Amino acid sequence: MRIVVDAMGSDDYPQPDVAGAVAAARRFGDEIILVGDAQTLEREVKKHDTTGCHLTIHHAAEIITMTDKPRAVVRGKPNSSMHVGMRLVKEGEADAFVTAGNTGGALAVAMLASLGRIRGVKRPALGVIFPTPEKPFLIDNGANADATPEQLVQFGQMGALYVTRMNGIERPRVGLISNGEEEGKGNELIKLAAEQIAQTDLNYIGNIEPKDFMFGGADVAVADGFVGNILIKTAEATAKLLGETMRRELKADLRSMAGALLARPALRRVSLAMDPYEIGGAPLLGVNGVVIVGHGRSNSRAIENAIGQARRAVEFGIVDAIKEGLGSPKS
Amino acid sequence: MRIVVDAMGSDDYPQPDVAGAVAAARRFGDEIILVGDAQTLEREVKKHDTTGCHLTIHHAAEIITMTDKPRAVVRGKPNSSMHVGMRLVKEGEADAFVTAGNTGGALAVAMLASLGRIRGVKRPALGVIFPTPEKPFLIDNGANADATPEQLVQFGQMGALYVTRMNGIERPRVGLISNGEEEGKGNELIKLAAEQIAQTDLNYIGNIEPKDFMFGGADVAVADGFVGNILIKTAEATAKLLGETMRRELKADLRSMAGALLARPALRRVSLAMDPYEIGGAPLLGVNGVVIVGHGRSNSRAIENAIGQARRAVEFGIVDAIKEGLGSPKS
Repeated sequence: MRIVVDAMGSDDYPQPDVAGAVAAARRFGDEIILVGDAQTLEREVKKHDTTGCHLTIHHAAEIITMTDKPRAVVRGKPNSSMHVGMRLVKEGEADAFVTAGNTGGALAVAMLASLGRIRGVKRPALGVIFPTPEKPFLIDNGANADATPEQLVQFGQMGALYVTRMNGIERPRVGLISNGEEEGKGNELIKLAAEQIAQTDLNYIGNIEPKDFMFGGADVAVADGFVGNILIKTAEATAKLLGETMRRELKADLRSMAGALLARPALRRVSLAMDPYEIGGAPLLGVNGVVIVGHGRSNSRAIENAIGQARRAVEFGIVDAIKEGLGSPKS
Repeated sequence: MRIVVDAMGSDDYPQPDVAGAVAAARRFGDEIILVGDAQTLEREVKKHDTTGCHLTIHHAAEIITMTDKPRAVVRGKPNSSMHVGMRLVKEGEADAFVTAGNTGGALAVAMLASLGRIRGVKRPALGVIFPTPEKPFLIDNGANADATPEQLVQFGQMGALYVTRMNGIERPRVGLISNGEEEGKGNELIKLAAEQIAQTDLNYIGNIEPKDFMFGGADVAVADGFVGNILIKTAEATAKLLGETMRRELKADLRSMAGALLARPALRRVSLAMDPYEIGGAPLLGVNGVVIVGHGRSNSRAIENAIGQARRAVEFGIVDAIKEGLGSPKS
């Protein structure tokens, strides 16, 4: 398998991107193609022991930054690492593309400059695996700030296909994120989507609140990208706030410090159990190729895991699953 | 001051409601009027030492349950504890109403059967004080699942007036909850609201993400009730999930258990610092009277604090502040 990694993607590029790629090349044995400024990358790769790793560098002259406007980059930076990387996938030179760069940029480049949509897909959407014990899947995580009921229904279908292939869940439970579980709760968008989704052959379980979602009450939770993004960011912020408050209180006196020292392995396990870096990235579902988008703040471990996720998406045929599931002919 | 407490409000009514009322009557020295089934309440009050407390019971024959549809109760249960309690406020027999009952019900009864809106208010909204060190104020917490840009602007105005009066913040920083801080981020609703709010005399600081909100980046954060509710519920769910994971890990071996025992006072301080019960309830802003709505799962401490919040709202003249601030004549 050949996986393209955007080496100019993360906030701290190219360090975490290259380090993660090297680790993945060793761990999985796949060929990893690093895309970005060739000179920079040659220097960066030399910092690592790459014996036995199948790593190649593919030059891309431009970089899409986090502040670039998505639509402006499509034609404005035709030689960006995203353009070049996704083109390799489109032309069959590679099987998947991984980036920790600008999410809107990745979506725009995929849609308008290279891979394009799978036929029948209204809007691609970002799915995100929640780092909780049950690993529920939320879609959309931010690709579409505004969505129609029809789009939400399709997010549910794509999410279900993903979870079925990747996790082997035959009839994943699909719910709509809402402000109450009771039927009839929700804003107008959710109420309309609920009517429509109930008529599909999805295993639709109704509205779900954030609590039920996080505690494993659904396998796939559907939201528009605005609400999904607020949900994810609120969970991250709460975890951060609690973590900081705890660290402060545990340093407040000697007794607490001693307690924290003893409990350190347990506290580590808590952090690790909910570490989003252990997940790696969010699949961009509905585009005609495997694209995994990582967090801008990805460390090398996150990049490595995003690559792992990309190879599983290829292995389990996610793109074909969506093509078949949404009724268009298999490629 | 006389404060009416809905004794049939919380999920476990009347125990927490009455216990909280007794505690508040003692703590604040105000007269507390308990509204609900007189016989039940007489029995419940007898369980407490009420020496020196000014407590009266006012009979109400009906109860609004958590599953009652808001609009159905307005005419369907005209003798509910909410109707009777708010009527006492409307008729000047009491200064404020506190309930831990059905939020939609409280809003509907207030709007359609008793207090009504303050003139100039498009839609009343629930504000909630976030239990973090900076105590930021979020509005709307769920009263309006769908909102217009104009309504969001007014939520910002009401929230700012509240925070100015209650917390003495002269020029509170008002932000719109969004999926990115950058100008131009947001869904259509937020983009339109941003244009309009920038033209008011509010101290508008732009979009804020959940992280910045929770860490004190704004004094007032504005969202529609759907998004606000998802935000609050996600924060609660995350805190619960982290708490449970931590308790489990701290019990996993003897060393961790010993550590947890030593650190117990510190861990307690963490819980207490973020305990929503220490806040008490959410003010229903824009109705013509002080109404505080507590969580259905309120314990007696939450009821007591909600009463404390109600008396401060009366003391600081919140209703008059909104009347003046929104430009209608002072009552």
